[in-house]
Amino acid sequence: MSASNLPLSGTRLWDSLMEMAKVGGTPKGGSNRQTLTDVDAEGRALLRRWGEACGLTLSVDRLGNMVFRREGRDPGRAPVAIGSHLDTQPTGGKFDGVLGVLAGLEVMRALHEAGAETEAPLLLINWTNEEGARFSPPMMGSGAAMGIFTEAEVLAKRDQAGAVFGEELQRIGWQGEADPAELQTCAAYLELHIEQGKLLEDAGLNVGVVTHALAQHWFEVVVEGEDAHGGSPMAGRRDAMMAAAPLIAAVEEIALATLAPSGEPGRGTVGVVEVYPSSRNVAPSRVFFSVDFRHSDPDALARMGDALAARAAEIAAARRVTATVTPFWYSPHTPFDSTLVERARASATARGLRWREMPTAIGHDAVYMARKVPTVMIFTPCHGGLSHNEAESITLEWAEAGLQVLADAAIATANAKA
Amino acid sequence: MSASNLPLSGTRLWDSLMEMAKVGGTPKGGSNRQTLTDVDAEGRALLRRWGEACGLTLSVDRLGNMVFRREGRDPGRAPVAIGSHLDTQPTGGKFDGVLGVLAGLEVMRALHEAGAETEAPLLLINWTNEEGARFSPPMMGSGAAMGIFTEAEVLAKRDQAGAVFGEELQRIGWQGEADPAELQTCAAYLELHIEQGKLLEDAGLNVGVVTHALAQHWFEVVVEGEDAHGGSPMAGRRDAMMAAAPLIAAVEEIALATLAPSGEPGRGTVGVVEVYPSSRNVAPSRVFFSVDFRHSDPDALARMGDALAARAAEIAAARRVTATVTPFWYSPHTPFDSTLVERARASATARGLRWREMPTAIGHDAVYMARKVPTVMIFTPCHGGLSHNEAESITLEWAEAGLQVLADAAIATANAKA
Repeated sequence: MSASNLPLSGTRLWDSLMEMAKVGGTPKGGSNRQTLTDVDAEGRALLRRWGEACGLTLSVDRLGNMVFRREGRDPGRAPVAIGSHLDTQPTGGKFDGVLGVLAGLEVMRALHEAGAETEAPLLLINWTNEEGARFSPPMMGSGAAMGIFTEAEVLAKRDQAGAVFGEELQRIGWQGEADPAELQTCAAYLELHIEQGKLLEDAGLNVGVVTHALAQHWFEVVVEGEDAHGGSPMAGRRDAMMAAAPLIAAVEEIALATLAPSGEPGRGTVGVVEVYPSSRNVAPSRVFFSVDFRHSDPDALARMGDALAARAAEIAAARRVTATVTPFWYSPHTPFDSTLVERARASATARGLRWREMPTAIGHDAVYMARKVPTVMIFTPCHGGLSHNEAESITLEWAEAGLQVLADAAIATANAKA
Repeated sequence: MSASNLPLSGTRLWDSLMEMAKVGGTPKGGSNRQTLTDVDAEGRALLRRWGEACGLTLSVDRLGNMVFRREGRDPGRAPVAIGSHLDTQPTGGKFDGVLGVLAGLEVMRALHEAGAETEAPLLLINWTNEEGARFSPPMMGSGAAMGIFTEAEVLAKRDQAGAVFGEELQRIGWQGEADPAELQTCAAYLELHIEQGKLLEDAGLNVGVVTHALAQHWFEVVVEGEDAHGGSPMAGRRDAMMAAAPLIAAVEEIALATLAPSGEPGRGTVGVVEVYPSSRNVAPSRVFFSVDFRHSDPDALARMGDALAARAAEIAAARRVTATVTPFWYSPHTPFDSTLVERARASATARGLRWREMPTAIGHDAVYMARKVPTVMIFTPCHGGLSHNEAESITLEWAEAGLQVLADAAIATANAKA
């Protein structure tokens, strides 16, 4: 059976997206289906009904990850998994995560309808707590499955109200007995997701084949000078804010100036700035800010960090302040599997889609899966790059294009010679 | 009687400073004598004892301003007032405000000891709530006396705990019946204060003759762009922080580049910066910051505001964001009285002191008094410019120099031909 003959239905997928969106639906047309809430349980129950209706067998692991299985002709072969997440941000949209789960469901439905078999078994995964909105950090279910977090630490996490992850998982009735680490033995993992950017839309494309995840390096910067009254002369000041301002500007300059061999620049963001003592007529003694650097080229990313430290030292010396740059978090460059990437490319070309290769600069369950399992992601455009927002939107045509590539690549992998 | 024969005692002044500092004294050697607290009442009672011991008559007005009177040879003449404040910041020092009150007391003590008379009556004023630390804004007692605030609005102010100014004033037993507006009829007002800067110390001087208060213009700036995920490409961003950073830096550039005809630059401070949504991996959609501009030349101050607006418009256009600059507070250029300034200069020269003329860039009761009454200020150096700090410190020699100029100028004014 090849996917090109499968009765994939874009409208059935769309109808399911719209129905799932009502679970925790918000007045503005988004969804608030945060992890381990009552509406998360409701969404899970709906997915279970849909999965069982097309012959899938559900297993739930100790972290609440839902794993549906469709048996292969050779049950002993390592399964090919499709997945994403149903949980949302508090003001989430209808597609972030949900598209990947329900597109996987549509592949299963079409196979079921056609009575088709694949060589390897197929899995459909709904990961617990991808968003990290209620319990931080994000991507806990996939991270723990891949051994990046321990199960114990995940189960002990608390939300801002003090509720414990493990207790909430039991309370909503979705703690199972399967070992999440079993997922490390998958033959492949495929995830369709909205782009959460606007490269595809701006270029008039309908599919992105994701080749790798950008390396990220986050820093904390503390600039310390001396506070001075707003009436004091400029000459004697050691104003931490006036030292921080050019260093913040340098984050953008460094991102734009640090090029990969391909000529691609990096990405630099200062999202948090805190000033002390924070009084209108006091030149600050201390400024804290966060730096988020990303680059498709790991060497270039390292140079970005070096450039920031050098610029900080230069400004500190010139302004008689201290400027301390401390690494805060690092996520390595993660290449996706070249065979899977090639299958996605081949599908997009064969289907006559308008596609490009691109990296993901955002964390996804697929990025953790890629540490242990051959992985690929497929991107669907989203209007204006808008995401984590109730107004998040895509078109049916975009959803269908992504669904086709996902189905083709997954079935080709499941049917490839073992 | 000329002040040069007066038995002014620097050590008596010093001893009183040290004794007053114990009222609300802190372990680190400062004072916490915030306005309308029990320790404020205790400090007031101590000053009353000292004032009455040297023959002064106390009148308290409806805002708690304490006004001691020493009768003149001509009781019908408008009085010459010396004053400052005994209230402190929560972590205040021993000298800010206290020096001016107790130096005035020392003038009264010396006159009393010498059995001397002046032509005009002399007043010694302890203003209520100069600091504005507990009840905002600062300089309420002098501001209301000069008609800048109404008595009703001052009495209705609340502190952060919700306590009402008028109720607290009654509670500590220091609401009197005098009309604060009577002080508008003073012939002159003189105030000795620590510099709260380090120009005098750095130049090896021991007295500053204050010729004017710098004009101040405060602004609020709001930069609005669009939030973007830290993983999104730089090209499409409208990052409010990256637009705000050069505009913050411009505040300093404008202050340094906007010169008075004398070549003197302005002063520019960004003390408060707030970023939304304040997440490490989100390029901000909105940045708020405060701007405090001051200049000894009012025209130059106006040009600073214009330059900020122009730079904001330029950055907004280049970066496709909005940058709104809104005036927040304005305090006009306030020249002090030329006759009083000349008397202070003459005293400093005659006494062989090391002095300079200078502006005050900081608000004082004297700046409000100057709206209605001929006024001058005298500055004493303070170590490292440190103020609003328990480690605030001055030397006995500095205190004596300021005391002498204050006494000379006050007595010369009280004895001048009416």
